[in-house]
Amino acid sequence: MTLKASPLAMVPFVSVDNMMRLIHSIGIETFMADLAREIEHDFARWELFDKTPRLGSHSDVGVIELMPTSDGELYGFKYVNGHPKNMKEGLQTVTAFGVLADVYTGYPILFSEMTVLTALRTGAMSAVATKHLASPDAKTMAMIGNGAQSEFQCLAIKAVCGINDIRLYDIDPEATKKCAANLADLGFTITTCTTPEEAIEGADVITVATADKDMQTILTDNMVGAGVHINAIGGDCPGKTELHRDIVARSTVFVEYPPQTRIEGEIQQMPEDHPVTELWQVITGATPGRTSASEVTLFDGVGFAIEDFSALRYVHKQIKDTPFYVDIDLIADPDDPRDLFGMIKRAG
Amino acid sequence: MTLKASPLAMVPFVSVDNMMRLIHSIGIETFMADLAREIEHDFARWELFDKTPRLGSHSDVGVIELMPTSDGELYGFKYVNGHPKNMKEGLQTVTAFGVLADVYTGYPILFSEMTVLTALRTGAMSAVATKHLASPDAKTMAMIGNGAQSEFQCLAIKAVCGINDIRLYDIDPEATKKCAANLADLGFTITTCTTPEEAIEGADVITVATADKDMQTILTDNMVGAGVHINAIGGDCPGKTELHRDIVARSTVFVEYPPQTRIEGEIQQMPEDHPVTELWQVITGATPGRTSASEVTLFDGVGFAIEDFSALRYVHKQIKDTPFYVDIDLIADPDDPRDLFGMIKRAG
Repeated sequence: MTLKASPLAMVPFVSVDNMMRLIHSIGIETFMADLAREIEHDFARWELFDKTPRLGSHSDVGVIELMPTSDGELYGFKYVNGHPKNMKEGLQTVTAFGVLADVYTGYPILFSEMTVLTALRTGAMSAVATKHLASPDAKTMAMIGNGAQSEFQCLAIKAVCGINDIRLYDIDPEATKKCAANLADLGFTITTCTTPEEAIEGADVITVATADKDMQTILTDNMVGAGVHINAIGGDCPGKTELHRDIVARSTVFVEYPPQTRIEGEIQQMPEDHPVTELWQVITGATPGRTSASEVTLFDGVGFAIEDFSALRYVHKQIKDTPFYVDIDLIADPDDPRDLFGMIKRAG
Repeated sequence: MTLKASPLAMVPFVSVDNMMRLIHSIGIETFMADLAREIEHDFARWELFDKTPRLGSHSDVGVIELMPTSDGELYGFKYVNGHPKNMKEGLQTVTAFGVLADVYTGYPILFSEMTVLTALRTGAMSAVATKHLASPDAKTMAMIGNGAQSEFQCLAIKAVCGINDIRLYDIDPEATKKCAANLADLGFTITTCTTPEEAIEGADVITVATADKDMQTILTDNMVGAGVHINAIGGDCPGKTELHRDIVARSTVFVEYPPQTRIEGEIQQMPEDHPVTELWQVITGATPGRTSASEVTLFDGVGFAIEDFSALRYVHKQIKDTPFYVDIDLIADPDDPRDLFGMIKRAG
């Protein structure tokens, strides 16, 4: 017996395998530049969105979070976990998947892996911040922390800001080696560094993406020169920060969504009323970004639901007329909506 | 090119089609009796669970909700929409799907349709409440509202409480006809009624499951006799109630999770401190349920995340060694967890 689902009942599903094929069919740098544009587009209409801090379920070893948002026409949410101990067990620290739905019917219209997609959108988000906050003639980036996120940061900054001179540093030289090897043939000038000072000296942009709490003392205040832009993206949960408090104190701080960043970001070290600028207001032009060549700007990025929404909408548009998804039978679709029981009974 | 996902990356998916096959392989009454036992089991250890009111995103035409919970070992959430106008457009008012995950790793272990499963667990939940609250010699149920949920209510009450004498009433006689036809060969004594009085007169249990706001005046106070147990399950969102205020006022009210029921249930008509008993305390024996033969007991059911958790865990156990699921490639699983980029690059 085969029950045929009606087209209404079908939801496109993008697996990890198909997400990777989609990325390669578009080109990873183009994909990230597109994502950056989608994020900018949505940040520019920030006030339209339903916003809420993510809903976390914490345990001793990690957290599972739901991150929903809506622009009134589409609704999206991401499921994401964070389990630092997973890596030692050969598992991903972060895995994710997400759904896009039609607000008018409530029906899901896309179900997608988001482990890979989140890695790309996190790179794209830092690139958007860097584009709007770094010195316009920035040429060099220090990439501190060379783990799973590092290559995505470098590629996005290259695709969006044209920065391709990269210095790599990690407390684990193996991580630096891996990152350098992955980036070797992708159009960068790579310098692998053995001290953080070597990486940071003269860099226009510093991107910090560390997974380890012990890393937080690496970047001390006296290393950070005037005029630098910092992306701090690894400190993204309560109790986890990457920068010395003094660096935060002397920077102009830009954030995604203050109620979430005050709990999860670098500014959790600061008083509750520490001044922050919302990045969307810089993008719309309502608030200035960098106001002088000597200012230190800090993007205190924790990842917000709207970025995932932008990424899901982009994937939904891109998979059209491609073989990079399969339809799955997720929604019951009885002939008579009042007769769900009859549908089940007849299937017997 | 085919990229083989590793077993770790695979998540079992239960489609609508496979859920119906699973139900028929177990038997729908057995399935609902099992669900009732799972719900009782979880209500009995209520205090272990992470509890939070559902997270809703409201629009002019409906709501999309996420309902998460966790017992510390497993985490579950349901996505569910509520769009009353959908039915006129040939769509389901309510569709749902859900996920079960391992708290220790954060990895999802089940992705399942829940439109069908929610219909069954909602019936099972009312049956649990009826078992603990109705008069022990209850024999007759009036089923008010003969829409998509009505057959599930009747079957669950039969499976769990042995009540098989059913009176059906709906403002739309076609709905009653559909419900009667669906139940005709399933071991009930069915009376179709043309007035609510006819259905309710002498009934031991009254179950009200209406989708329409206009129904709420059907059940007036003078119809409800002493000793009756009422399941009110259709009023499940702000602004939607089914019972006249006077009925609520003279009943002993039992609820799932007070912070949610006070917003969504029948008791939204009452003062904020209207006394309620949590059903889980009746199940553990901490609080008495019915205390006299003449008491009117009211289960003000709105549906809570723990019921979905129970249902997902049951399905997860039941699909083992069956053909009623397929594995989907939802989780990226690089050989080296720090080398997500390398995995993507090598797929090119």
